[in-house]
Amino acid sequence: MRRKIAILGATGSVGTSTLDLVERNPERFEVVAVTAATNSEALADIARRTGAALAVVSDEARLPDLAERLAGSGCRAAAGTDALIEAAAGEAELVIAAIVGCAGLRPVMAAVEAGRTVALANKEALVTAGALMTEAATRSGATLLPVDSEHNAIFQCLACGRKEDVAKIVLTASGGPFRTASAAAMREATPAEAVAHPNWSMGAKISVDSATMMNKGLELIEAHYLFGLPADRIDILIHPQSVVHSLVEFVDGSVLAQLGSPDMRIPIAYALAWPERIATPAQRLDLATVARLEFEAPDFSRFPALGLAREALLAGGSAPIVLNAANEAAVARFLASEIGFTDIARIVGQSLAEHDFAAPRSIVEVLEIDRLTRQRVAAALQAA
Amino acid sequence: MRRKIAILGATGSVGTSTLDLVERNPERFEVVAVTAATNSEALADIARRTGAALAVVSDEARLPDLAERLAGSGCRAAAGTDALIEAAAGEAELVIAAIVGCAGLRPVMAAVEAGRTVALANKEALVTAGALMTEAATRSGATLLPVDSEHNAIFQCLACGRKEDVAKIVLTASGGPFRTASAAAMREATPAEAVAHPNWSMGAKISVDSATMMNKGLELIEAHYLFGLPADRIDILIHPQSVVHSLVEFVDGSVLAQLGSPDMRIPIAYALAWPERIATPAQRLDLATVARLEFEAPDFSRFPALGLAREALLAGGSAPIVLNAANEAAVARFLASEIGFTDIARIVGQSLAEHDFAAPRSIVEVLEIDRLTRQRVAAALQAA
Repeated sequence: MRRKIAILGATGSVGTSTLDLVERNPERFEVVAVTAATNSEALADIARRTGAALAVVSDEARLPDLAERLAGSGCRAAAGTDALIEAAAGEAELVIAAIVGCAGLRPVMAAVEAGRTVALANKEALVTAGALMTEAATRSGATLLPVDSEHNAIFQCLACGRKEDVAKIVLTASGGPFRTASAAAMREATPAEAVAHPNWSMGAKISVDSATMMNKGLELIEAHYLFGLPADRIDILIHPQSVVHSLVEFVDGSVLAQLGSPDMRIPIAYALAWPERIATPAQRLDLATVARLEFEAPDFSRFPALGLAREALLAGGSAPIVLNAANEAAVARFLASEIGFTDIARIVGQSLAEHDFAAPRSIVEVLEIDRLTRQRVAAALQAA
Repeated sequence: MRRKIAILGATGSVGTSTLDLVERNPERFEVVAVTAATNSEALADIARRTGAALAVVSDEARLPDLAERLAGSGCRAAAGTDALIEAAAGEAELVIAAIVGCAGLRPVMAAVEAGRTVALANKEALVTAGALMTEAATRSGATLLPVDSEHNAIFQCLACGRKEDVAKIVLTASGGPFRTASAAAMREATPAEAVAHPNWSMGAKISVDSATMMNKGLELIEAHYLFGLPADRIDILIHPQSVVHSLVEFVDGSVLAQLGSPDMRIPIAYALAWPERIATPAQRLDLATVARLEFEAPDFSRFPALGLAREALLAGGSAPIVLNAANEAAVARFLASEIGFTDIARIVGQSLAEHDFAAPRSIVEVLEIDRLTRQRVAAALQAA
């Protein structure tokens, strides 16, 4: 029996890698639903190639184009949030949640509430709605499989022991392009310098998050909700080569690590095949050629985003939503050259200081806090 | 319910570490039998401390002393091979097999045939009788838990996937004191230089094995029998810091590694508590302080022992017995300054070339081939 899968965000980077693996293993997987934000042309092509029964474009204005391209294919075209939710909570057993940003929250929640196995590539799901998502998963019996390379590594290592025997988990971080930069140089950093990530090819926003290390701060929050450990049992370790994707230390002193070449098809394949494994075309890791792996403690003073994320996690409630939204708004301003690099953390810190942190009771409230935070960042920058 | 354990080789290094852990966890373990080669004084002390019901000294001449020291303790004193076998296959559920050398073979086999869980710290069991041991374990349902840090690491990593999804296993090796030595320097190496191991404190014989890298060759053979993989799916990787204890590569490209400080209490604790874990006083690994891990391919020309071990594994039958016995005999001559360092591998190679490799059908035959090999090495050196 083939496993029925839905790919939410099929035209993006994770979606494309997922399709590559699915098409290499036609005897294992049956794609039943695919979605995209706006690219109806690419989505229609994917739907025809995979034989999906449902294709959903978020942007309703693109529905006529999608419907026309799918005419006669046997694949139903749909648009809008309700259709996304249908794709997420429909007949798929495994949902690849690769929609970028808060747009992914409602479909992911629908899949979780429906008790599906959810391969999570959407950071916002756990950063902004971690408590809601994990509580819903506990109620419904849904399984959350992290696709992010760090969390996927930890998930793999956790198989080596019982949860109660875990001493701590260690998220590795490349340190980004400013790992060895002076504080003075970071104040003058340009968007072009900030997006030059040493190991992974990524979008501009997430590259800036790597430069500020806010990405690791967000991952710290995700790890807390995914693995149920308090902040003081989640460490961050700088590892410039990005070969060791993360580690788990057990009470006996054993440390388990997952390593690999920087190819997202490895964690995606793990989520697709779990609890089995499938072959991938990813380059094999050859440590003799890599020759050297380096590690150092993170510098919380040059990378204040790390401390802000830890604060937000400890504050709980809506604080991680504010952290995430303020960061997104500030990074957009930085990429537009409207603010400096070190202003990003300053703005995030101000936003955290100005909000109360009542916990959201629903995804609707999460989205509202997200919207309000962006509005306040815009207003504050206008006033400045 | 406390787990009943027997410690074969209780006065040695692994035995002492085992006792340390057992005494830290009195609610978990009940020592029912302890054995030693000759040290009746230390053995009697251990038997009294642990409240063991049976204490066995291999050397029958030491029985009167042992019996006298245990008078009134409630612990029965015994001696000789049959008593060792009784200790191994008696009431213990878990047998710590830490007798050094071929003297351990019959007790280990008895524990395996009795279907016990056997924590294997005796290399010879798998090197010289790997097929016999693993076949017996399959028949009896015995579980073999490796205590050696490399094999224990692999055993831990294998929990992260199904056996059929393993691509290969990678044994790490420190490279020993001659990792960067020239071939000329190795020809002139003295026993004092050869026993200076960079990372672990070990006995003289095993230190020389580390210098020739025969230890890694023997571990290759052990890994083959323990994990059921062919020689071409077991790699050796030089890693001078000995922090990564070994690795497993899965078909998807994920590599799992176990790391830790060089403290045998970590793998021993794992074997004691498996499938759970217990806390150990071993120093926690701090990678930021370690700072750098290095890896390189092994040099088969300066370390011919590696190639000889692979040959012996491929030849099968009694070849690994010959390899092991010839090596032990040659190392003893080297430590006595009777032969040079590079003569060790030469003698092992000659011994392999001169033997036929009919497979042993019993431990008695294993011991006979072992004895004959040592005799032939002695005769050949006499003649030279």
